[in-house]
Amino acid sequence: MTDPFSHTIKVEDNDHPHEECAIFGIWNASDAATLTTLGLHALQHRGQEATGIVCFDPKAQQFHAHHGFGLVGDVFSNTHTMATLKGTCAIGHNRYATSGASLLHNLQPIFAEFIFGGLAIAHNGNLTNAQMLRRELIQRGCLFQSTMDTEVFVHLIAISPYTTVEEKLIDALKRVMGAYSLVILSQDTLIGARDPFGIRPLVLGRLPAKQGHDSWVLSSETCGLDIIGAEFVRDIEPGEIIFIEKNDLRSVHPFTTKTPRFCVFEYIYFARPDTFLEGLSVYNVRKEIGRELAKESPIDADMVVPVPDSGVPAAIGYAEASNLPFELGIIRNHYIGRTFIEPSDHIRHLGVKMKHSPNRAVLEGKRVILVDDSIVRGTTSRKIVDMVRLAGAKEVHLRISSPPTEYSCFYGIDTPERNKLLAVQHDLKAMAKIIGVESLAFISHKGLEHAIQNSCKDSKYTTYCDACFTGHYPISLIDYNNIHKENQYG
Amino acid sequence: MTDPFSHTIKVEDNDHPHEECAIFGIWNASDAATLTTLGLHALQHRGQEATGIVCFDPKAQQFHAHHGFGLVGDVFSNTHTMATLKGTCAIGHNRYATSGASLLHNLQPIFAEFIFGGLAIAHNGNLTNAQMLRRELIQRGCLFQSTMDTEVFVHLIAISPYTTVEEKLIDALKRVMGAYSLVILSQDTLIGARDPFGIRPLVLGRLPAKQGHDSWVLSSETCGLDIIGAEFVRDIEPGEIIFIEKNDLRSVHPFTTKTPRFCVFEYIYFARPDTFLEGLSVYNVRKEIGRELAKESPIDADMVVPVPDSGVPAAIGYAEASNLPFELGIIRNHYIGRTFIEPSDHIRHLGVKMKHSPNRAVLEGKRVILVDDSIVRGTTSRKIVDMVRLAGAKEVHLRISSPPTEYSCFYGIDTPERNKLLAVQHDLKAMAKIIGVESLAFISHKGLEHAIQNSCKDSKYTTYCDACFTGHYPISLIDYNNIHKENQYG
Amino acid sequence: MTDPFSHTIKVEDNDHPHEECAIFGIWNASDAATLTTLGLHALQHRGQEATGIVCFDPKAQQFHAHHGFGLVGDVFSNTHTMATLKGTCAIGHNRYATSGASLLHNLQPIFAEFIFGGLAIAHNGNLTNAQMLRRELIQRGCLFQSTMDTEVFVHLIAISPYTTVEEKLIDALKRVMGAYSLVILSQDTLIGARDPFGIRPLVLGRLPAKQGHDSWVLSSETCGLDIIGAEFVRDIEPGEIIFIEKNDLRSVHPFTTKTPRFCVFEYIYFARPDTFLEGLSVYNVRKEIGRELAKESPIDADMVVPVPDSGVPAAIGYAEASNLPFELGIIRNHYIGRTFIEPSDHIRHLGVKMKHSPNRAVLEGKRVILVDDSIVRGTTSRKIVDMVRLAGAKEVHLRISSPPTEYSCFYGIDTPERNKLLAVQHDLKAMAKIIGVESLAFISHKGLEHAIQNSCKDSKYTTYCDACFTGHYPISLIDYNNIHKENQYG
Amino acid sequence: MTDPFSHTIKVEDNDHPHEECAIFGIWNASDAATLTTLGLHALQHRGQEATGIVCFDPKAQQFHAHHGFGLVGDVFSNTHTMATLKGTCAIGHNRYATSGASLLHNLQPIFAEFIFGGLAIAHNGNLTNAQMLRRELIQRGCLFQSTMDTEVFVHLIAISPYTTVEEKLIDALKRVMGAYSLVILSQDTLIGARDPFGIRPLVLGRLPAKQGHDSWVLSSETCGLDIIGAEFVRDIEPGEIIFIEKNDLRSVHPFTTKTPRFCVFEYIYFARPDTFLEGLSVYNVRKEIGRELAKESPIDADMVVPVPDSGVPAAIGYAEASNLPFELGIIRNHYIGRTFIEPSDHIRHLGVKMKHSPNRAVLEGKRVILVDDSIVRGTTSRKIVDMVRLAGAKEVHLRISSPPTEYSCFYGIDTPERNKLLAVQHDLKAMAKIIGVESLAFISHKGLEHAIQNSCKDSKYTTYCDACFTGHYPISLIDYNNIHKENQYG
Repeated sequence: MTDPFSHTIKVEDNDHPHEECAIFGIWNASDAATLTTLGLHALQHRGQEATGIVCFDPKAQQFHAHHGFGLVGDVFSNTHTMATLKGTCAIGHNRYATSGASLLHNLQPIFAEFIFGGLAIAHNGNLTNAQMLRRELIQRGCLFQSTMDTEVFVHLIAISPYTTVEEKLIDALKRVMGAYSLVILSQDTLIGARDPFGIRPLVLGRLPAKQGHDSWVLSSETCGLDIIGAEFVRDIEPGEIIFIEKNDLRSVHPFTTKTPRFCVFEYIYFARPDTFLEGLSVYNVRKEIGRELAKESPIDADMVVPVPDSGVPAAIGYAEASNLPFELGIIRNHYIGRTFIEPSDHIRHLGVKMKHSPNRAVLEGKRVILVDDSIVRGTTSRKIVDMVRLAGAKEVHLRISSPPTEYSCFYGIDTPERNKLLAVQHDLKAMAKIIGVESLAFISHKGLEHAIQNSCKDSKYTTYCDACFTGHYPISLIDYNNIHKENQYG
Repeated sequence: MTDPFSHTIKVEDNDHPHEECAIFGIWNASDAATLTTLGLHALQHRGQEATGIVCFDPKAQQFHAHHGFGLVGDVFSNTHTMATLKGTCAIGHNRYATSGASLLHNLQPIFAEFIFGGLAIAHNGNLTNAQMLRRELIQRGCLFQSTMDTEVFVHLIAISPYTTVEEKLIDALKRVMGAYSLVILSQDTLIGARDPFGIRPLVLGRLPAKQGHDSWVLSSETCGLDIIGAEFVRDIEPGEIIFIEKNDLRSVHPFTTKTPRFCVFEYIYFARPDTFLEGLSVYNVRKEIGRELAKESPIDADMVVPVPDSGVPAAIGYAEASNLPFELGIIRNHYIGRTFIEPSDHIRHLGVKMKHSPNRAVLEGKRVILVDDSIVRGTTSRKIVDMVRLAGAKEVHLRISSPPTEYSCFYGIDTPERNKLLAVQHDLKAMAKIIGVESLAFISHKGLEHAIQNSCKDSKYTTYCDACFTGHYPISLIDYNNIHKENQYG
Repeated sequence: MTDPFSHTIKVEDNDHPHEECAIFGIWNASDAATLTTLGLHALQHRGQEATGIVCFDPKAQQFHAHHGFGLVGDVFSNTHTMATLKGTCAIGHNRYATSGASLLHNLQPIFAEFIFGGLAIAHNGNLTNAQMLRRELIQRGCLFQSTMDTEVFVHLIAISPYTTVEEKLIDALKRVMGAYSLVILSQDTLIGARDPFGIRPLVLGRLPAKQGHDSWVLSSETCGLDIIGAEFVRDIEPGEIIFIEKNDLRSVHPFTTKTPRFCVFEYIYFARPDTFLEGLSVYNVRKEIGRELAKESPIDADMVVPVPDSGVPAAIGYAEASNLPFELGIIRNHYIGRTFIEPSDHIRHLGVKMKHSPNRAVLEGKRVILVDDSIVRGTTSRKIVDMVRLAGAKEVHLRISSPPTEYSCFYGIDTPERNKLLAVQHDLKAMAKIIGVESLAFISHKGLEHAIQNSCKDSKYTTYCDACFTGHYPISLIDYNNIHKENQYG
Repeated sequence: MTDPFSHTIKVEDNDHPHEECAIFGIWNASDAATLTTLGLHALQHRGQEATGIVCFDPKAQQFHAHHGFGLVGDVFSNTHTMATLKGTCAIGHNRYATSGASLLHNLQPIFAEFIFGGLAIAHNGNLTNAQMLRRELIQRGCLFQSTMDTEVFVHLIAISPYTTVEEKLIDALKRVMGAYSLVILSQDTLIGARDPFGIRPLVLGRLPAKQGHDSWVLSSETCGLDIIGAEFVRDIEPGEIIFIEKNDLRSVHPFTTKTPRFCVFEYIYFARPDTFLEGLSVYNVRKEIGRELAKESPIDADMVVPVPDSGVPAAIGYAEASNLPFELGIIRNHYIGRTFIEPSDHIRHLGVKMKHSPNRAVLEGKRVILVDDSIVRGTTSRKIVDMVRLAGAKEVHLRISSPPTEYSCFYGIDTPERNKLLAVQHDLKAMAKIIGVESLAFISHKGLEHAIQNSCKDSKYTTYCDACFTGHYPISLIDYNNIHKENQYG
């Protein structure tokens, strides 16, 4: 008997920040839902806990929806399911759980009935005044049926005194603070929006028509366009809302212009390496960080070894810049399955690693430079270093392709509370000792800046959100003021 | 791979009216959720499509919920699931789908967050001004996330200007029209309510405490009390709202008193025979109807055969009153499973019956009086009569333990549109011909009345809702005015 | 995540003897596999734990198989599964677990490759020299991959020195002792066989051809023919083997003729009431037993109440003969689901009954005659009597439609060891006291005989296997000699 | 509803040779079954279709078994399942389907009952006289219940005239031809065996005891030892059978010594890079092949790009030797899920690639050397080259780290028939044209030999099985003589 809303324990990577969501939308395409499953599949790295699609069938004037827990390829595996998802436009969402438990109603896209008809919303990001707004809205009689901050959007749209969907949406967005990229589907419009700071990504693509009109595509990353053969048109701009109706694409910028603050961690860790964000190749940025890191923190060693998979591009860059061999000293096992049972204490004691194994032939007797993307709590780093050393490494030097993570993220990344972060608790020397390495170095803030600049000459943005490193939060943390007062930015 | 929100086709009894729901609640009991699964199991006949439980754990001050498609015994089969449903009070719901498709959000109990905290609602019945209210509420900015009329209740509570939960609830109930029995759970109260006409049932029971305070129980029928050993206290009265808090039970009657109109079809078909409703034994009422039917429409025959299972008590009564042998001439196969595949046309052609088979040894060469509870479209009756005749019956006389079903129900019973009802389309003689019987008779309105009176001397109610037979609708059909104008009462 | 070979605990009726199996076969029919699912569905009462079908597709010259745990309607619910089960002949099996755990390889039909090609076998019954043969065969180098005695057949066929399938099969059957009804499918033959004593049933039917040749059908009971509209041709005779090839039906009787010994318990409990076995209607036999019981053990009481469902026909007979009203004093809940979780001790203590509930309106203050089919351990009877008394019955008299069960069955019925049987441990008076009734009576051996004779004038058999009542085992219990020496016959 | 023995279509890599199996065994360890799941997880790359474990519990003197379709982490995800798998020794198997359909009985380990008790066998490899032996055994009366050649072993053991398990096993092994590594579990012995040519791998490890006696471990590859912290002891030798009983390890060499012929493709593709086989690091061999390939077939280009994941080590070697940058020009998506639905024709037309995506930032305008491990049919290579070119690569040069695959494997690798192999159909120039590359080169036979020699000075073996490249089959292909006469070796 299957239990639709229970989960077995997953083997998680609990020591990396977690991205919350991927969003995707497509307009004017036959097989819209299937194309959306493909887009969501390409964006699977941004969230693996649950997925959902809402599509609209203009012939029947009906919305169809399907949500489920698990990978895109599993939730949408059923021909019967796909057959019900008729229509020529669709939006979809992958979720990594942050706010709220695994509640049924916490699955996205949210769908609700409004005065103007049905509307589905998928959201990537996190609002910083959601709790306050929620209290106000509940006071007013609005009914919250989930624990997601995304539900605030739909209520704000519903209660807006304005008359058109466009005005209502702008009215709603003007009331929220925080990070959001949104795709929204009504009966006659596909909408994409980014918050005024442009913290989370959203790109626009086009699938050339074989006959008739082109299809428009919205995706968290360009890899969601590539998989369906859509061409990249441009990034949705910070503060831009784009309305796709009939064959028309219309853009509005209803907010006061802000200095853009795209999340720098998208480059460092979250985005797929083949993705372009804000004009830069994620892969190139990572390699450049590796190069800078090699310049800043060189060390005499025998080889450079990435912690796979996220550490690979930076390790390639580090190896190139330091003229050291690049070696696969750690092998990753990708066949985890969905439900691996947790080992008993007896077996846990053996130090079993389900995902990583050391490549003894490479490591034995060698001085190794490990390259990883970040240190959060430090527990995973410690285990990996132990593993490498047990496999015979003579020295282990750890190089991190981000500055020390010293602040929590409130813009859509699932980070532990500040006091659980290793870099908050200890200085560099103590961290090295705890992790068990001969040397430890993080890329400097300056180095990170250089790396990004080197990645592309015509990079438009010179400012990023790096609050997790600096504590300079570009958007007020209304809901978190008491807890994190010390973190706040001017 | 499981598909949490898709269903395979079920072998349904498509020619009976369908009850929509069962509701159940329990207060102050350890294992509240498990006791609720038992109560829902006993009430499974009122709805088999989906089920859900919301419970409240006062220690953790947390609500827990679990919903799923299928039978109670399957959805709550998992020890892990049950372990998460902690708490000392709980409400539950079984659903037979009427309004709305099998949408995820159409599962009950509904749970939402209000100004005063969380609230869960389970509803049996149907509102007759839900569409109107829904339009008004949407105008006002309320957000509908399901297609259930039950969602209207929660919005009305949420927007009520009053301050206490009790006042808000009464305010909300005063705005709705239609049939409802409700169980509601907040952090500190279990609430039961019936509409002013008392159309759908709701009973109160008590589970004597082994130590400490008694547990209070609310259930659609007394069989939900019996299974957990709770004693029957009384029916919730029409228009009564009962508040169970701490160890206190408080009753209010906020509505103008109406002549009660309990649904007579509960006696005829829906309720379980071992249940008592409004002081009467369902089994006894059915037997008495059979007796009256024998008096009104006797026929010279060899035996009385029930259409199992619902026709059995009336057939026993008919056989007794007519002094004819009672025989199991039709055998029912209960092992249907959840997902029997629909036979191909080739096989359907063979006239396969998955649920009923004829007992040839009894039927062959005999004059048979078949007793069934109702005729809706007439298609099932036709098939059963064919089957009985193929098994050798010389004559088939059909006796129906309800008056002809000539009007749709708008109070919570899933009936076809009026023009699909056989008794609307044809007179008695034509119906007999279509169904293929030598004679056909329905209980008269008078006979039905006598049967109920005979069932219990001290029956308090002399008035019932029999709109499906008479078209006398006690409650205005606001949402249906245009379609069913001719049906309306007074 | 589904666990294909694990089971959740089922709510079982642990105090009745359990039938092990149903078998079914069909020859020369398009949709052979689907017709087999229907036949198996009609035979579901003979085994609910697992089911399987093997079919042969003459076009592709290929066998196809599908097995699974659960009800027929669930295991064969998938259109994809059904699409793979191509072919014009098929055999199927429902299993109630007896020998062996729920091993993967214990599912039937067994399929194996022989010198002459593939062969599938489905078996109802139990061999009494299987252990001995198994030991011999293993000595010889035969490889046992299951714990079923049925595997002995296939090895005996495989090692037979004869040349044709027919000779090999006869050779194999001559070596086994015990009870068996078999359906067997090779590439060009459908075979049916019954042991020389004809202990388990097997009937032959025919599905008239719309064009071309008729289809032949084999089924444990006639209800398996009725569901697909096949006409009953005759019972396979004890000791008969029937070969259906092309359009030919050929019968052989290779064994020394024995006095037939059809299992009398098939009439009393196992078979479906609408089935005919050995020329007698099961329903009529049961009613006649009820009548005899009323004559033998009358009692002054207010009504006769069956323990549903198996006690109903005998209760009708008892009520008629004693001129007492027949009442549904106990209601059965059929919506058990597949996986109802076992209640905790706390709840078990409440005396929860998932399957039966008392009809208080009928029972209160009354002197009740309960009619049930058998008493095995007595635990269920005790619980039902308690329930009836708690519902207010003034007196409870229990009448059992079989003689006392005093011996274990070794011919295919799952009974407890002899010393666990209530009738072995106690005399009638003590039994009545343990069960808690005012009076207890079993049908006498003579009464049972009369009832069967009364059921049909031209009943061919005057002898039955009633070893479970008398200890007169018609077939030697080779494997059980030491344990059950005292039980043996002749 | 789950369908235990049906599968949804998987996204397969259909253009690589497929390994059939992984085997694993452990002796004298508490939690033997859990340790086996870990070993099988580490060996998951050798087979993902199905998995199984048989363990023995010496206390209860009972074998327990669990098999299922899917990944190890999914099939053994259930705590209930794991709790039933008691015992201190266990063997396990991962399967990639080759012979036979996905039959229930084709799951390994096979378990059967013998004259000396139960015995479980897990096999990696393929026999070349299995069909012949099967025919003989069936003639003799042996019963085949699966289509696996592994079943031949168990019958040969069962019919052996010798008396001890050891003698019977040796007798059986002397009769089979072909490739096999075996782990076998009886009640008192864990056995490991390799065929006289040592074609498939098998290693011995030891898990040091915390108290009492060490645990012995057998595994297809050393990575199965590493994951549980077992130390590598040595390879099982070609033709060696090892018996582990009580605390004793005993080795026998019953066969005439042959020139060892370890499968060279294990180095090239199948084994995990962190594994050591026959004394050589798989990673090092692959890198050395890359280096040789760079020497043999250099080309002027901008970068070296691996086809992930298997092409990575050779690409690193090629890049080092050619002094070109190593770049991740192709990104692999590992989140495939178990059941991704096949895209419709409409979408397939878009050239969707579920597993690979091009890294445009790296490829655009560049001359790219792609490194892959082999070309079988050439279809995947063609698609990948197209993808790389569409992403903007100016030139694409393909380098293959194996010689051309010109012959089918009959020793346990699932290769297409010879006439489907691209290298059989076309010469190098034509292949380059078909695949669409500017240049194509395979490592030479000589180069492969050098690479292996360079990988380790003290490599014991100088001879490998390279029949897939040369057609020099070291073991007679009895079953395949007619089809493949031209292929045979001396």
